[in-house]
Formats: sequence, structure tokens, C-alpha cells
Amino acid sequence: MSGTTVAALPAEQGDGGEAPGSGAPVVLAVDLGGTAMKGAVVAEGGAVVAELTRPTPGGDILGALVTLFHDLREVAGVAEREVVGAGVATPGMLDEQRGIVHYASNLDWRDVPLLDILQGELDLPVAVGHDVRAAGLAERTFGAAQGSDDFVLVPIGTGVAAALVTAGGTITGATGAAGEFGHIPVVAGGEPCTCGQRGCLEVYMSGAGVARRYREAGGSALSTRRIVARLGSDPLADRIWGDAVDVLAQGLTILTLLLDPKVVVLGGGVSHAGDALFAPLERAVTAGLAWRERPAIVASGLGGDAGRTGAGLLAFTAAR
Amino acid sequence: MSGTTVAALPAEQGDGGEAPGSGAPVVLAVDLGGTAMKGAVVAEGGAVVAELTRPTPGGDILGALVTLFHDLREVAGVAEREVVGAGVATPGMLDEQRGIVHYASNLDWRDVPLLDILQGELDLPVAVGHDVRAAGLAERTFGAAQGSDDFVLVPIGTGVAAALVTAGGTITGATGAAGEFGHIPVVAGGEPCTCGQRGCLEVYMSGAGVARRYREAGGSALSTRRIVARLGSDPLADRIWGDAVDVLAQGLTILTLLLDPKVVVLGGGVSHAGDALFAPLERAVTAGLAWRERPAIVASGLGGDAGRTGAGLLAFTAAR
Repeated sequence: MSGTTVAALPAEQGDGGEAPGSGAPVVLAVDLGGTAMKGAVVAEGGAVVAELTRPTPGGDILGALVTLFHDLREVAGVAEREVVGAGVATPGMLDEQRGIVHYASNLDWRDVPLLDILQGELDLPVAVGHDVRAAGLAERTFGAAQGSDDFVLVPIGTGVAAALVTAGGTITGATGAAGEFGHIPVVAGGEPCTCGQRGCLEVYMSGAGVARRYREAGGSALSTRRIVARLGSDPLADRIWGDAVDVLAQGLTILTLLLDPKVVVLGGGVSHAGDALFAPLERAVTAGLAWRERPAIVASGLGGDAGRTGAGLLAFTAAR
Repeated sequence: MSGTTVAALPAEQGDGGEAPGSGAPVVLAVDLGGTAMKGAVVAEGGAVVAELTRPTPGGDILGALVTLFHDLREVAGVAEREVVGAGVATPGMLDEQRGIVHYASNLDWRDVPLLDILQGELDLPVAVGHDVRAAGLAERTFGAAQGSDDFVLVPIGTGVAAALVTAGGTITGATGAAGEFGHIPVVAGGEPCTCGQRGCLEVYMSGAGVARRYREAGGSALSTRRIVARLGSDPLADRIWGDAVDVLAQGLTILTLLLDPKVVVLGGGVSHAGDALFAPLERAVTAGLAWRERPAIVASGLGGDAGRTGAGLLAFTAAR
């Protein structure tokens, strides 16, 4: 076993409520990202029995993922838990039913039959889910969107994505590519995006976007977190952050008019900006929705664990 | 009976295929609009047995609607058909399950319990549906989106709306207000809309919007159809129409990135512009979707009858 980070946690953490060491069934869950593979042994109800997080390697990601799952199973064995399934949340365009990742740019994957590979390796029921949609499922089950059939989860990190939930189902679209909220064009002929388009939302509102625009406008090379810390005393920070909030407000106004969600859940690093984000954002979305009420706008209840928790939920569903 | 327009049609019209005068069950269907009430006696399979269209009165709309339904029933009786249900497609914000129209500005209705009223008057199973969503159902069953589980229908008339269909279900939202595509803000701080917001899509691309912008820019008071007819010989018409197509392309790019539809169906009067609309629109949407394929963009197969046909489909569902 070669875990980079291992944390054995008391089983009463989370909403599970089962007794520690009770041997209640668990699943192995991994949130596979471009930077880190966040793994955990999870009991039904969301209780985390143990965590195991490793950096995503530059080379053989699939091999590293399989090794992580085997090591998670070993951890579950040490904890004397029966493993009933495994779930992985991945980025990219995928066929969730068949468990095939058609394209994931930050993993450099094309047409990887992930479900078949993991099922062969683990001999367990396996579920493959989209990372943001899995996080949405977790927010709905345990987090800030609990009990809501109509909500959107918008993680704002380096880039921006969205899980769009309507009538209790997550929108996947005809080719599994729904939810590209970060790339909706909000400024016609605007600044260029890495995606090849112009004026995308995440050009203006994302960790990478705010930092780049601040630097290109003559500011220092600061992180978005540090730029937010300068609000009120740095006019350039005020301006760049103001643009970001305005563009996000425009995007959330569009989402509200199209999908009519009850709740908008903001996640990702940028959502930790607190009042500097939520106060002006709420004002701008209210102003943009002249003739209807705005949905509640709240911070994620699960933060960076949402994808992994969602993978665990999918695994329990596959095990049934 | 006081029908303004009565047309008894051969029963073999439509996709039904049942023998004329066979007595196969029918439903009464009305598309209730701000200008006209389009009624029909419809057989399963969509065959129209008879049509009855009247102007929507300025005063007692509900009374006129009830009268229209009674007259449609009389027409069905003349045709010796058993009536098994009734369906009405209405604009506005509504609770389709309970059949309550919460708000419809062009009918001046607030909290009208339409289903209960019609059921009491007609003693039939009744369905109440949203006009644009009912039209989407009709396009999916008989029209341009046949067999598609993921598509959008965008009727472009005086204003603009949308039926958003994902995984076979039409998005209604938390308060029944989903699909307000005409009011998504596409130009930050743009021209004012009648809704109280600025820069809405339909300010630039709609029958009313194109005509207003052409006139305000110094052109004559022409209809959008006549403005389109001047393309190529009238630089002002070229510019205003170019703006309209660009804004619609931006809106359809947003819809595609969020919902990933297989097909975009354009309806309403403006969709009859043909190549003047579709050719530049397809180019602009393709350009706006740099890294993914664009959905097919097609004209409605049912035109102005889609709402009424959808009301008929809902009525047959209620009758089961």
C-alpha cells in the first residue's frame, strides 16, 4: 500500500449514524481530478470510514486509479468492513450508463471503457459518474440542496462547470455534454477563452480568469483569493472582481430564466469568498430578474468532498 | 353554436389513419392565445376531425373558452364521435398537475383554477398544459423533433419562448416558469425590454423587436416579414436582421452548452424567413461552438397548430 495521505476517521462522521466498527457495508469512492485522486471508504448515509488521496500522475492515470481502488479495499479490510461496490467520478464527456469516458482533456483520455476495466479489476459492482453531476447528487442528498428537485450546482474553481438538476434528474444531454456553464458566451466578441471561443463566462469569473485579468490589467501576479482580500483598498481588484460578479450574475440570471431552479449552490474555491461574493451577486441577480423572484443562492455544504461523496452514492446504487 | 371559423375536415388528415366517420374516440383541444382561441376535435394519432377558431375576447375569456369547448363537443357529436377528454394549452406561469394558471399577462389571469372549472363544465377528463411546452410535445410526437429525447423548440413570433426537453421530459422548473428563453440577458446593459430588464434576447430577435429596432433606426414602419424581404437591397434591414441573427445564435449557443440538445426546432412566424434565417444562423452557431458539434437546426413541422395538437395529446393522456 502506497497511500500519500491516509486518514482513518471515526465512522460517526457524516450522516450515517452506524456504530464504529459495526461492519456495516461500505463502498470505495474516488473523485478523479486532473490534479488529485480523492479516494474514500464510505458507508451508506455518507459516513467516511477512511480517506486516501493521491496526486494524479502525469503518466499512467488508469493504473494509478486501479491501484488506489485496491488500496482503498485493503483499508476497508483493515476496518473489517464488507465492500459492496465502487464508484468513480470523472471529468469530461462520458456515457454514464455504459461507463465510457469519451473525452477528458485534463486526463488525456479518449474512449476509455472505465466501467468494464474497473469491474474486471475489482470484481465488484461499479458506477461511473460525471464529477460535477456526482457532486450535484451529493449536494442534493447531504448538502446545500437537500430535498430540492430543481437546483443547480455551480463549482467555481480554476474553471466553472454546473450540475443542472430538474424534476429530480440531472441533465446530461444528447451526447453527455450538458452543463458547460463556464463556456456560455456572455460577452459577444469578448476576451478569448482557452476553449477557442470568446467571451465565455469563465474568462471573467473563475480562479484562473480573475487572476489573469488582474495581472493583464497591470496588477501583480496574485491568486484570486489574494485579489479578493484587497477589495476596498485596491481599485483594480475592485474593478476586476466587479466584472466577475456581474458576469456570474448574468449567467445565473440566464440559468434561472431557462431552468427556474429553487436553489443555486455555489462550490469550488471561489465560493469561499463569502460576503465579497454573495452580497453583490444577490443584488445583481435580483436586479436582473425584474419580474420574478430570484432563487436562493447558497454556498456548498460539502465543498471539495462533494464529488467523492457523489461517487459513493452512485456506488451504493450500483450495488443494489 | 356561434363558431367564427368552422372547418369540418376529412378524418384521414394527420397521422391517424382511422376510417372517416368510424366513431373512434376523440378529444376536444384548444390552444388559448392572447389573440385567438384555436380549437379542434382531434382523434388519437393527431387526425383533426374539425376545427373551430375564434378571436380571444377582450372581456370574459373564461366564458368564451367554456363556450368554445361546448361548441367543439357539439361538432364532435355531429361527426358521431365519442368525446373522451379535453385539453387546453395556455400561456403564462402554471401548475400543470393541478391545472391552475398562476399568472398569464396576456389573458389578465391570476390564479385561475382552469382544470377544476373545465372539468365541472364538461364532465370530462381535462388536461391543462403550458402552450409552448404542449407545442414541444407535439413536435416530438408528430413534428420536427420526432423520436428525440433531447431537443428545444423555440417559437419566434411577437416574442420568443422555448420548450426545453431533456431525457424525454419537458423542463418546468421549481415554480413552473422555466423556458423564458426570450428574456435571457444577452447584451449586458442593452436596450430596454417590455419586461423591465435590459438586453433580453427578444429585444433584438422577435417579430416585435426587429420591427421596432428598424423603425427606431430611421426605417419605415414595416413588419419583420417585409424587412426580411428587403435584405440585400436595404443596408438598414441587413444590419438590424444581422443583429437579430447574431443574438439568436448567441442564445442557441448558450442553450446548446447548457442542455446539449440533439435538435433545435424553430417555430413561429419569424421561422418562415427560410434561408435568410437558417443559413447565417447555422454559420454563427457553428462558429460559437468552437470545440463541439452543433445540434441540427430545423423549422417546425407543425407550425401554428403545434400548441393545439399538444393540447390534444395531453387530453388523450388525461383520458387514460
